[in-house]
Amino acid sequence: MTADLFKRLEAAAPGESVALPDVLDALRFNDAGLIPAIAQRHDTGEVVMFAWMNPATIAETLRTGRVCYFSRSKGRVWRKGEESGNVQTLRDMRIDCDGDVLLLTVEQSGPACHTGRRGCFYLRVDGDRVTITDAQLRRPDEMYRITE
Amino acid sequence: MTADLFKRLEAAAPGESVALPDVLDALRFNDAGLIPAIAQRHDTGEVVMFAWMNPATIAETLRTGRVCYFSRSKGRVWRKGEESGNVQTLRDMRIDCDGDVLLLTVEQSGPACHTGRRGCFYLRVDGDRVTITDAQLRRPDEMYRITE
Repeated sequence: MTADLFKRLEAAAPGESVALPDVLDALRFNDAGLIPAIAQRHDTGEVVMFAWMNPATIAETLRTGRVCYFSRSKGRVWRKGEESGNVQTLRDMRIDCDGDVLLLTVEQSGPACHTGRRGCFYLRVDGDRVTITDAQLRRPDEMYRITE
Repeated sequence: MTADLFKRLEAAAPGESVALPDVLDALRFNDAGLIPAIAQRHDTGEVVMFAWMNPATIAETLRTGRVCYFSRSKGRVWRKGEESGNVQTLRDMRIDCDGDVLLLTVEQSGPACHTGRRGCFYLRVDGDRVTITDAQLRRPDEMYRITE
């Protein structure tokens, strides 16, 4: 049933649509109940981070327009920017062809990365080296409480 | 040790670099030995697909410049385009802040999605509906052998 919905949509034409609850019910979560979510800036197209969502964080994100993830390290819902203030506002949510990945287009306030950089992908393979490409815009100790 | 490398690089300045083998050794694979890989078109910035890599497919991709993944459904190395001809040529490989996600910038030949669309993220949440945003550029039965 789950696989059938996405299989059926493979040949659908642009503009065709299906009910959101049916698609959400058909999403394919991993064994931990999570689905990968890629966050891309709406203005520059930069992929700024990658995280995980569960049904509750998808629902909350769609309802509030403020992106929240499920943090595997914290073991709980993580409203992006809850401590740092670097919130993400949802512009667009897309689902991939087989219903097991989400792509979020976001307005990013401040640095997206916990290191204080614009995004998380600041390590670039460069021949036989890996080079740091981005500077920290903020210092993590300014963004997070010491107890973090 | 693994975590330490990425932790240490958090405060590194742009232009600093480390040896590629050290970074590859420190990558954090999941329990199945895989790491998520996001593929983004170099020319338009579109995120066209999401797949998984293992150490062997990372090494082959870097060595040959032709992107290959580990296919969980096929249970083997999957050289993107091996059947469809829709190959990806690597422009750039980036690693995220904690070493557990890859971002590939690619030249995409033909449709990236197995449905024949430009990319896999053609299902967009639109209020209480999900709408198909993209047309098929090629028919899957033209791209794949019937036995597929």
